[in-house]
Amino acid sequence: MKIESINNDKVKTWSKLKEKKYRDLNNMFIIEGDHLLNEALKKGVVLEIISTDKTWESSNLPFYEVTDAIMKKLSSQITPSKVIGICKKLETKEISGNVCILDNIQDPGNLGTIIRSAIAFNINTILMSNDTVDLYNEKVIRASEGMIFNLNYQKGSLNEMITELKNKNYKIYGTDVNKGKSLKEVVFDSKSAIIIGNEGKGMNEQLQPLCDNLIRIPISSNCESLNAGVAASIIFYEMERINI
Amino acid sequence: MKIESINNDKVKTWSKLKEKKYRDLNNMFIIEGDHLLNEALKKGVVLEIISTDKTWESSNLPFYEVTDAIMKKLSSQITPSKVIGICKKLETKEISGNVCILDNIQDPGNLGTIIRSAIAFNINTILMSNDTVDLYNEKVIRASEGMIFNLNYQKGSLNEMITELKNKNYKIYGTDVNKGKSLKEVVFDSKSAIIIGNEGKGMNEQLQPLCDNLIRIPISSNCESLNAGVAASIIFYEMERINI
Repeated sequence: MKIESINNDKVKTWSKLKEKKYRDLNNMFIIEGDHLLNEALKKGVVLEIISTDKTWESSNLPFYEVTDAIMKKLSSQITPSKVIGICKKLETKEISGNVCILDNIQDPGNLGTIIRSAIAFNINTILMSNDTVDLYNEKVIRASEGMIFNLNYQKGSLNEMITELKNKNYKIYGTDVNKGKSLKEVVFDSKSAIIIGNEGKGMNEQLQPLCDNLIRIPISSNCESLNAGVAASIIFYEMERINI
Repeated sequence: MKIESINNDKVKTWSKLKEKKYRDLNNMFIIEGDHLLNEALKKGVVLEIISTDKTWESSNLPFYEVTDAIMKKLSSQITPSKVIGICKKLETKEISGNVCILDNIQDPGNLGTIIRSAIAFNINTILMSNDTVDLYNEKVIRASEGMIFNLNYQKGSLNEMITELKNKNYKIYGTDVNKGKSLKEVVFDSKSAIIIGNEGKGMNEQLQPLCDNLIRIPISSNCESLNAGVAASIIFYEMERINI
């Protein structure tokens, strides 16, 4: 049966998931559009499907047809998608392979790009400081192009998480705009963790004593720094030696 | 004297520069904030400075103090900057060094990121297809972090511009998500031009016969493709062999 009223209880609950507070409270988040929904379905994290037409009705999941007005209320885009999925948050798995550590990344587009590039270069685990932008922000999910569903992540104190990595024999690589070894000269360890710093301030200096190495990407003196997502992606590309 | 009226003729003229049509007609564009203004001043392209306070009054350029309401009208940001500069468009210079060719890049953030990374890796010339997003779009300028002022660019028919490069003995490298030589195996020519394709469709197939080589960035099968700005930046990084 089609939901017609914008004041329907279900609609109210879904709509609240646009706020971090309610995503945390319910352990759920919203995704929009066919591409993201397909990626989420592959990983079995979709709980409910909501659409303005019947295309997705035949899936085995609870399905709700809604009006355009309701979709507009649920959507975060200027032109709402025809389908929205309600997903359960990702579960944390055992850490393996190379790791990315994010220190206070603030721009959701950057976080999404970093996730997309990490998965592209076989880095499946990202550890985030508590002050990093929310992983389930719709802009993060969109910029990740669905790669978020392949991600293993933890959010917490970087000091504690880095100490844990060191106990597992990971080598920790810090980054700096000017200081450190040129990326072109670095030979990464088989268990490497790279720290990417905040967009404006770079990596917190207090993390430096925890690093085994400090890395810089060599750039022209005309340019102060690279975009954080770009810098992370170039380092991931260099860390990945299996693919040719 | 402070401009108080939002209907002032100067204000109307400045405000129109938010549209591409008027930027093209007047050969001018708007920039916002101290950082961009400083970068533009280094290159001598600023014509007028407009501010809500007197900080910039002592420059040798025509200066206009305006009200917060006027600044809000001129600004493209939710929280307007305190200063805006009116700049003249960049002049095209002789092509030298490595070159980037953009085929129908649509996202202004991607174009800005590509400009920022190009300058970082000593690629000063970008050639753009006519259907690429406007270089003077405020989001492009912002994402370029002011690197736009170091740029030499041409906009036109890619066929013609590529033919001209070939006459100058440039080697043309096309890009594809799946086909071509792995970037890790490519040794770039000393005069190289790299083509970056549209975000959704990739490089136009009609350009393939013009390419001396086709390149792909090796990525995991879990991921369809990289972000266009990221892909471009990784290739620029590999093309740049002078800096260590």
